[in-house]
Amino acid sequence: MTSEFELIRNHFVRPTPQAILGPGDDCALIAPALGMQLAITTDMLIAGTHFLPDTDPCQLGWKTLAVNLSDLAAMGARPRWALLAGSLPEVSEPWIAAFTDGLFACASYYGVDIIGGDTTRGPLAFCLTAIGEVPIGMALRRDQALLDDDLWVSGQPGLAALGLAHLQGRTVLAEPLLKPCLAALQRPLARVELGLELRRRGLAHAAIDVSDGLLADLGHILQGSAVAAELFVAQLPPLPTTADPVLARQCQLAGGDDYELVFSAAPEKRAEITALADHLALPLWRCGLVVGAAPGQLTLLDDQGRVVPINEKGYDHFG
Amino acid sequence: MTSEFELIRNHFVRPTPQAILGPGDDCALIAPALGMQLAITTDMLIAGTHFLPDTDPCQLGWKTLAVNLSDLAAMGARPRWALLAGSLPEVSEPWIAAFTDGLFACASYYGVDIIGGDTTRGPLAFCLTAIGEVPIGMALRRDQALLDDDLWVSGQPGLAALGLAHLQGRTVLAEPLLKPCLAALQRPLARVELGLELRRRGLAHAAIDVSDGLLADLGHILQGSAVAAELFVAQLPPLPTTADPVLARQCQLAGGDDYELVFSAAPEKRAEITALADHLALPLWRCGLVVGAAPGQLTLLDDQGRVVPINEKGYDHFG
Repeated sequence: MTSEFELIRNHFVRPTPQAILGPGDDCALIAPALGMQLAITTDMLIAGTHFLPDTDPCQLGWKTLAVNLSDLAAMGARPRWALLAGSLPEVSEPWIAAFTDGLFACASYYGVDIIGGDTTRGPLAFCLTAIGEVPIGMALRRDQALLDDDLWVSGQPGLAALGLAHLQGRTVLAEPLLKPCLAALQRPLARVELGLELRRRGLAHAAIDVSDGLLADLGHILQGSAVAAELFVAQLPPLPTTADPVLARQCQLAGGDDYELVFSAAPEKRAEITALADHLALPLWRCGLVVGAAPGQLTLLDDQGRVVPINEKGYDHFG
Repeated sequence: MTSEFELIRNHFVRPTPQAILGPGDDCALIAPALGMQLAITTDMLIAGTHFLPDTDPCQLGWKTLAVNLSDLAAMGARPRWALLAGSLPEVSEPWIAAFTDGLFACASYYGVDIIGGDTTRGPLAFCLTAIGEVPIGMALRRDQALLDDDLWVSGQPGLAALGLAHLQGRTVLAEPLLKPCLAALQRPLARVELGLELRRRGLAHAAIDVSDGLLADLGHILQGSAVAAELFVAQLPPLPTTADPVLARQCQLAGGDDYELVFSAAPEKRAEITALADHLALPLWRCGLVVGAAPGQLTLLDDQGRVVPINEKGYDHFG
């Protein structure tokens, strides 16, 4: 006899060719390839904190995996396996089916096997653990930025926060801007290929993904590496012209949920990084410089070289 | 400047000698020893579903890790690493400090490094992912029970459920029974050494931990292995004499949260298993037999060989 509970669990079980043993036993079994380390990350997504309770379940399924793959991307690791624990207030099979459609669409896109998990009754929340492989000693860390490194950021950070502001009625976006902002918020891409190529080509010293906001996450690189940096506002990605410029800048500097990569690289790598941007069809913006001075300090400079006061420190869940 | 959020996270950061890179970056980095596979499991513990909201935080910290280590034990894996994601409704540093005291006491007891995690605001809930090592191809699985195997169970399943019944006012336990029942509920032991020795000594064909109840979890072995079994009530661990006998039997057969191991083994291993019980100072009860007949079917027999109807199917979160 199949219980309702088992029916739900069955939605989460698909073939796992990359695992030695997939879902259904006490544990999953995996083995990294020879010469590889494992990079592991876990993130909880809570209704009301990380997503609106009425979020489209298919997009939520995608995002639950993608935000964790972003952490693997920031280490230059190739995503391979994931486990999902879910807490559900009630059993709605159509909701679950849509969630798992999104989850497995993301898993398939990035080549990840969902090897195990847990399903329980409780407030709507998910916890995903993602595991990737990276050659021994080659992971991109946040504590390896060097003096005189350039600072780079990928894509268009701020779009997700703009999309959220629109959904919350704090601004009104129109097409063609609305669509990419909602996509960035609801169906983010993890910059896996960028992370892999930065690592493979030896281009980056330090990297992090922009989950808490550009300033906050760049700050983590500076603190981890015990360096300071200057960020040049004029060299950041151009703001969308149809959005409120103050809000757009705020979102770009301090908006969470972006999942772009910020990385530091030696100045002599500029041509190679520009070539990589072309290769990936992903804009990479050289927007800052690692300097000496006070470790961890970040200075924002306008196009005249004047210091811009930093008011927005990025998103702090307990702030 | 250290935010309240960072202070909390700092409680979760201790040395991780077994990891290549511990907490603080986008991912943790680990590498299994040569010839080893990784066994991985994840479990969510939700206030109100898995523990009473006023549970002692130190015991909760212990249990959050122990229940996952139990899954590793059931595979015969040695626990090595864990990641913890926590959702907290408010920041209470003393609560967090007590929780992490319990967590790290358990980690230290079992030799586990807490290599990463996530802290967020939300309803009280934890999700722990535990990772262990097992020699390639040697994991104890639930789908390997063979015809004519004996069925064994460790310790005293049912104590945790009796303890919960006492706390919920459904029964009244007195000392000396109360203490071990509360300990089983609140500070369970994972049978890691038992799992390791069963695997090392080649004693078990199939194994599972009793998290959902003896009948339910034994049922998973039978379904996974496509065999049937007879369970002999008279050969189960003696019930505590000072407890309501009907409740005590119900707890023994269907109580969750026990974390004993159930395993199947060839009859010629009986002497070795008895010797192992002595070695571990842990009672091991030979209480059943794998038979042919309908796959997945479990028959309960009394001391006269009469069939006992099974009413309690074990704990189903959506039941």
